[in-house]
Order: sequence, then structure tokens, then C-alpha cells
Amino acid sequence: MSLTVDLNSDMGEGFGPWMSGDDEALLDIVTSANIACGMHAGDWDWMARTMARAARNGVGIGAHPGFADLQGFGRRKLSMPHESLANLVRYQVAAAEGMARATGAPMRHVKLHGALANMCAADREMSLACYRAVLSVAPDTTIMVLAGTEQERAVRELGCNAASEIFADRAYNDDATLVDRSLPGAVIHDAEAAATRVVEMVQAGAIITATGKTLPCRIDTVCLHSDTPEAVEMARAVRQRLEAANVTLTAFEGQPIA
Amino acid sequence: MSLTVDLNSDMGEGFGPWMSGDDEALLDIVTSANIACGMHAGDWDWMARTMARAARNGVGIGAHPGFADLQGFGRRKLSMPHESLANLVRYQVAAAEGMARATGAPMRHVKLHGALANMCAADREMSLACYRAVLSVAPDTTIMVLAGTEQERAVRELGCNAASEIFADRAYNDDATLVDRSLPGAVIHDAEAAATRVVEMVQAGAIITATGKTLPCRIDTVCLHSDTPEAVEMARAVRQRLEAANVTLTAFEGQPIA
Amino acid sequence: MSLTVDLNSDMGEGFGPWMSGDDEALLDIVTSANIACGMHAGDWDWMARTMARAARNGVGIGAHPGFADLQGFGRRKLSMPHESLANLVRYQVAAAEGMARATGAPMRHVKLHGALANMCAADREMSLACYRAVLSVAPDTTIMVLAGTEQERAVRELGCNAASEIFADRAYNDDATLVDRSLPGAVIHDAEAAATRVVEMVQAGAIITATGKTLPCRIDTVCLHSDTPEAVEMARAVRQRLEAANVTLTAFEGQPIA
Amino acid sequence: MSLTVDLNSDMGEGFGPWMSGDDEALLDIVTSANIACGMHAGDWDWMARTMARAARNGVGIGAHPGFADLQGFGRRKLSMPHESLANLVRYQVAAAEGMARATGAPMRHVKLHGALANMCAADREMSLACYRAVLSVAPDTTIMVLAGTEQERAVRELGCNAASEIFADRAYNDDATLVDRSLPGAVIHDAEAAATRVVEMVQAGAIITATGKTLPCRIDTVCLHSDTPEAVEMARAVRQRLEAANVTLTAFEGQPIA
Repeated sequence: MSLTVDLNSDMGEGFGPWMSGDDEALLDIVTSANIACGMHAGDWDWMARTMARAARNGVGIGAHPGFADLQGFGRRKLSMPHESLANLVRYQVAAAEGMARATGAPMRHVKLHGALANMCAADREMSLACYRAVLSVAPDTTIMVLAGTEQERAVRELGCNAASEIFADRAYNDDATLVDRSLPGAVIHDAEAAATRVVEMVQAGAIITATGKTLPCRIDTVCLHSDTPEAVEMARAVRQRLEAANVTLTAFEGQPIA
Repeated sequence: MSLTVDLNSDMGEGFGPWMSGDDEALLDIVTSANIACGMHAGDWDWMARTMARAARNGVGIGAHPGFADLQGFGRRKLSMPHESLANLVRYQVAAAEGMARATGAPMRHVKLHGALANMCAADREMSLACYRAVLSVAPDTTIMVLAGTEQERAVRELGCNAASEIFADRAYNDDATLVDRSLPGAVIHDAEAAATRVVEMVQAGAIITATGKTLPCRIDTVCLHSDTPEAVEMARAVRQRLEAANVTLTAFEGQPIA
Repeated sequence: MSLTVDLNSDMGEGFGPWMSGDDEALLDIVTSANIACGMHAGDWDWMARTMARAARNGVGIGAHPGFADLQGFGRRKLSMPHESLANLVRYQVAAAEGMARATGAPMRHVKLHGALANMCAADREMSLACYRAVLSVAPDTTIMVLAGTEQERAVRELGCNAASEIFADRAYNDDATLVDRSLPGAVIHDAEAAATRVVEMVQAGAIITATGKTLPCRIDTVCLHSDTPEAVEMARAVRQRLEAANVTLTAFEGQPIA
Repeated sequence: MSLTVDLNSDMGEGFGPWMSGDDEALLDIVTSANIACGMHAGDWDWMARTMARAARNGVGIGAHPGFADLQGFGRRKLSMPHESLANLVRYQVAAAEGMARATGAPMRHVKLHGALANMCAADREMSLACYRAVLSVAPDTTIMVLAGTEQERAVRELGCNAASEIFADRAYNDDATLVDRSLPGAVIHDAEAAATRVVEMVQAGAIITATGKTLPCRIDTVCLHSDTPEAVEMARAVRQRLEAANVTLTAFEGQPIA
């Protein structure tokens, strides 16, 4: 029986006249697109354009909600009451869900962005507030979570459809957290090295840490960054190596994480 | 057979810490609420709060999309290509539709706001661009239009569900356009005078102009302004007079305008 | 020799169509106005209007910069690098300084708003980053600081012109911090009680804490909130009591804090 | 006696994470930079960075105010009362003036952006409203105007310091207006052709129209676009050809237009 995995990338993260990343090249490589919803990036025109392109390429459409902080690209921590946070997520997911439907392709998943995602990875209650808001709009959608974090524990508690994600280009600590960006080796810049490691992790069904430890986990999807200089090259290398290893690349069928 | 009409008012037009209008009082009077969608007013918290209140009171929930111009409250003309305009409307209607669903009450109608509404009232192509965008997200929703304008001609061309609206407090010219605000008598400030006139128009099934001419038209709903000093008093007077005249007040069942 | 003190209040905190507080009434009472600069509130029209009114009443004009967070009214904590924070403050102070000059009245002081002020009260380095930015635009301006906080220690370190502020309606702990809002008695709602306490503190030249301890400090100005239901009544009571006690009310002449 | 001319370009037109144009390359070529002021583009960080770079290169710093329309990059027509428009301009010019001062280099000029500039080019009253607002903040600054338009007639009426501008890459009609972009030849894409034409116009002291007619006018500065694919190449070609023709390139000394 062959292994199957999804490749996802953030997209539509321009605003007005400004572009971010080579969406067109990446849409030929990935199987799922996390599309910005107008708050940290991605206005109504970028959303419509990116959804239409994704649909044309058979790439799964996802909503990528973030903090309402355009100038900071949703990367700054912001303290908000859970109720307001839930409304913020609801608004973005609803906008994306309806626009995807208008494009003729369904919204299949939701993935949190930037500081919102990082804060949730460390805070189960915050994750629950966001994810309950997602499900209030789209009860059957798949929630993409960072493997081994409070995000994952939250979707397990909710029993909702989920997809568990590893990073192609980030080193892991032995407790499944990411190596701090300020440390050497935290970010993998070499496309081939990243691709080799992804294949190993997908075949092992486990995160392989910087020290070589294996942490078994469900791996439904691999996150490919879209805004680094080496983004497209790395995405291509990962795809080629996975295909060479007979791993089937296709958008996930989200299901509850046991 | 008794006459039936809907009373609608704009709501949820605050933003962050700022309020606009006495929504709570009006939600005891009207049968339909046009709820701002975050662009000219009405952030995610205001939307959630206002939709919950409307649902609790059995008031029909509508989306009220406008130009993305918070500082100008969507009242400034803005030149946009139709494609971008359609995406802007799609975004807002989708956000409202999904959030209403999350609240447990459906979005029933859509009404354009401010300068966007005024420009469409005079431009059928622009109306068509906006309304096709609405229907791409919510094909069965009712589009509320200004009786006798290009908005009305657009919904007739589309054959979609529609509700035709008259103003409680604005005088009409003999060609069904509104008397310019700069002219004396253009805006009716006296609650009783407005209420009397509304009853006459609803019973006549016609706009009654400033010169006394009657222009037959379908009247599905009466627009009550929410942001004038006399808003609540006028709304109450209109409701009482219509009830006294045995007119049934209930949210419209939108249907195509012949 | 008579005592002298300034009364300050936040103003111009509307945005577009939305108002906040009764600026007109307060401008007859206070001697200094902290005017929002467009980021947490207060667009270009509100700034121009509020500055013109303050100038007409002989009230000292101050800039009131905050986080760029309109929906949260600058009350949500936001993590920003000091360099970007400095640019944000520079931008707002420059806008206010030039607009005040255009109005024909000089900008006399700067006071931080909301979460930005609270974070600085607990963080000297952050205060220094903000205040150096202020002084890079307006080297002689007076920086208004919360007595007894890291804000005060920062202006002492800088040796710049400063004005030290106490709150009319907030209870103090014995270490000069404010009693947490969640505790009983933290906020004083009774206008006369607040006024009595202000007179005592100004006459004592000291903060008087909730337990009755006196903490000597320079008191240049008293902060009167503008957005509570009792705002105007309390402002009037404080002014009357100070006048009755022969305290001269006038905009401060900022000077370094020893 | 040698001819002198200034070369200007729009700069700092990024926002948050997004860039626009190759500012670094252009700052080695131009003598004046029109720096976005946060409304159509250019947040506080972009302003600070761009001003610091311009100062380092000895390039004259100018404010480039536009409509408050980030998503539309200030290119959409917006109807605003003159008073509000004046406040909007005042705000941006004041922010730029103070930030430039904080950078250690003075703001030398102001040039309107996008739709605001285009609307003013056809409307003297609107130009006067904007320019009076500029001068209320910075009475001695130089206002850069499009030669032969209502902008130019407005600065003549005001008697203020001004610099008259021609476009390097746009063809002119015989009445000094620009050839409509939809017509062939309206935009010159060939760097050498543009450079040749600029030298001819500067030497003739006249606009040379598409039909070969010469329209004498003061030429203080040449506008080089920064956001086209050929921007840097064209800027270099224009600079080299002017230098080869012994034209001195230096920031203008604005003076009233007779």
C-alpha cells in the first residue's frame, strides 16, 4: 500500500498593488493552498484571483485567517478576548467559504496564520476558541494543525476533521517544538537537504528531530513556505523526491485525529 | 385580504468602541435589519452582536455591503472596476452569510449601502455587477432595491428574488427619484407626517410624490433611518400607524419583480 | 504662594462618523487636551476640528499617540520591535505637531495612549524608545508621564521637559501602581469623592494610596477621563474644588523632573 | 551658462512586508524623491527607511500625499469635500515634514499622488485647497506641479515656491495634456527614445508634443516612474543623456512660477 501526503503553501498574500511570493509557480507544485482572508494580507481581489487559480489547477482551497494587522503581516502578537478572536476567525472563514463557493470550488480546510498560529500552538484554550469558531461556520471542514502542539490537542478534543502538518524547512527539538529561529540550523535553506528529510519523515510516519530522535505522529501534509528566496526551488525538490519515493501527492481527506 | 409590509433599518453600524444609532430600540420595531459588513462600518464583533440580537427578536438578517471606506462611512463616491466591485460585494456578503449561519439564523436579504447604493440607483450595469456577485454567493437571497431606480430594473432583468423599498422620510420627485437633500422639504423630520404618508403609499401601492402624483409600484418594505435624532420616534410612529390601518408587519418573502 | 496644577483629558477620539466623549463640554474645563493622532482613533478631520476648538478655548494642545489598532481603540497589547515603535510614535507626533502649527497654536505636550502607555509604564526601555522618538521631532515638547512609573524614570533619564500626572478616578497601591480594575474600589465613580481626593493629593504634593499612605511626588497635571458616563460631572467637580482651594488651574510649563 | 534640471521619482511606496520598485537603485540616479506618506502606501517604517536612504544619498526629500486608499494604491477617484481633503493633505505633509526633520534632513517639496494628482490637474479649486493645506504646514516648501495643468495655474495664483514637471515616458497632446493611455504611443517604453526626448525638451525649454509641436514652459524637473519593469534602465538612460548634453542634475531651488 502506497503512502499519501499533501503539500500545502500560503498563498494570495498580496494586498492591493503588492504581491508576495510566486503563487503561480507554487500552484503547479502544491496540493493545498492556504489563502489569506483580508486581515493580515489578501484583499477581496487577491482572494478571488487566487481561488480561481487554485480551482483551475485542482489545488484544494483553504482559508488562512490571521490577526487584523496588515502593517505587521499578522506576525505581531496581539492580546484579544477569546470572544472577539472567535468573531474575527468566523468573519474570515465565512468570507473565504462563500467566495470559494462563488468560484465554483469548495473551501476544504482552514489553517491559522502567523502570530495567531504561534500563540495557539502554545495555548489549547485559544486554539479551541478559534477552532470552534471555524466549525460554527463550516462544521465539516478540515482544520490543519501543527503536529505535536496544543493546536493538535485541541482538534483531538473537538473530534473534528483535521490534518496534521510538518514543516519542510524547520528543525525540530526533541519535544516536537521548533528549534528557535535564532539558533544555527533552525531553518533549512538547502532544497535537497529539506527534501531528503521530508521523505524520511513521511516514510517513518514521524517527526525526526535535530538530534535524530523519531517522534511518531500522523503526517497528513507538509508545509512549504512561499515567501523565502528558495521557496519554489525547495517546493519542487520536495515534490520530486516524494514522487521518486512513490509517495502519492494529493489533497488530504481530513479525518479526526485519534 | 390584508396588506403586508416589511420595515427595514440599517444596523450594526458601529466600529470597535464606537456606536451608531439605537439598535436595541429599533430591533423592537423593524422586521428586517440591514447589518454592516465591516467595510464602511461594522466590524466582526458588531456583526456577531447585532446578528444575535436580530435573531433573538425574530428580525430578518440582511447583509449591508458598502465601499471599503471607514473614515467616509461609505458615503463617498469611489471609482472601481466592476470586477473589483463584484469581489468587494462577494466578500462582504459571504462574511455576513456565514456569520449569520453561525449565529443560527439565515441571511435573508442584501441591501447596498451609501454611495454604492446611490451610484447603483443610477447605473444598471453597476447594479448588475453587484447583484450577480450577491447571487454567486447566495442564489436564493432577496435583493432589496430602491423602487423605480436602476437597482429595480437590474433585479427585474436578473429575475431573482427581490424586495422593493420606499423611504419613510424622503420626498419623491414625479419621476420616482428622491428630491435633492438641498431643497426644502426633501427630508421629512416630523414622525407623524412621515407615518401618515407611509400608510397612504402602502395602501395605494404607489409612491406619492411631493406634488401629489401617484406612481404605482410594488412596496415590499419601508426604509426607516437609524442614525437621525428622530429615528426611533419615527420608526415607532410608522409601525403604530400601519398596525392601526390593519397592515400586517412581517419580514418579506422576496420574489421576482414582474 | 499659590499652588498650580493642570487638568488634562483625552480628546478627538472619534473616527469618521463616530464620536467619543463630550469634547465640547470638557474643553470648557480642562487646561490641556491630549488629541488622538489617527492610529487608535482620531482621523485628520477630528484632529483639525479638535485642535481648532482647543486653540479657541486656550486649552494646551497635546499629541496622544497610540497603537495602530482602530478596532481595538489602541487598548490591546501589541508586540513591536522598538525601532518600528519609534517610527510609529514619530509619525503621529509629527502629524500632530504640523497640524497644530497649521491651526495657529503650538503642540505643547505628548502623552501615550492605552496599551502603549500601560506597557511603557512597566518598561523603561520601551518608554525610552518612544520618548526619544518624540524628542527627535519636537525636542522642547513636554512629555506627560504617569507619576511613579517607568515612564517617569525614563523622562528623568532623558532630562527632557516633563509633566507628572495623577489620576482623578483611580485608586493607588502603596507602591504607586494603580489598583487592579478587577478589585473593588479600583475606579472612583463618585465625582465629589474624586474631587476631594484630588485636592488632598495636590495640596500634599503626594499620591495618597488606598490605605492612606502618602507618596510624595511632583504633581503637574490631573488626568480626567473623557469616556465614562460621569466624565463631565467629575471634571467639573474636580475643577470647582481645586478653585475653591485656591489652586490655580493652568497648562503646565513642562520642566525636567529632578 | 549651463542648463540645470532635477530628476524625481516616487519612492517608499511599499507597505508593511510589501515592496514596490527598486528604491535603492533609483536613489543613485534621481535628485528628488517623492516619499509616500502612509495613506495610499508607505507606512511609518517605510517612510523612515526611505528618508534615511535619501538623506544618505543627498537626494531631496519630498512628501507624496495621496488618497487614504491602500487597497487601490490611491489610484481610484474619491469624492471628498475640500475641507476634509485639506485636512488629509495637512496630516500627511505634517507627518512627512516632522519625520524628515527627525531624520536630520529637511522636507524640500510636496507632490500629489495618483488620482488626487489627476483630479487636481483638471480642477484649480481642488488644487488650491490642497496646496493651501500644504503651505499651512510648510510655507516655504516647493510644490511640484504638472506643467500646463490646473496644478500649475494654482501655484501661480498662490505665488508660492514651485517646480514644474514633465514626464519622461508619456506622450503629450498639443494642448499639453497627456495622450490617453489607451492610445498607441501614449507610454514610451524604450529607454533611449525617452532619454532623447527628455534632452530635447529640457534644451528647448518646452514640451514637445506627439505631433512635434513645441509648447514653451519652465521645466524644473523630470518625472521618472519607479514601478514599471523598465524603470531603472530608463532612469539611467535619461540621466546619462542629460549629463552627456552638459545638463547639470541637481535638486531644484523652487521659486514662484511667473
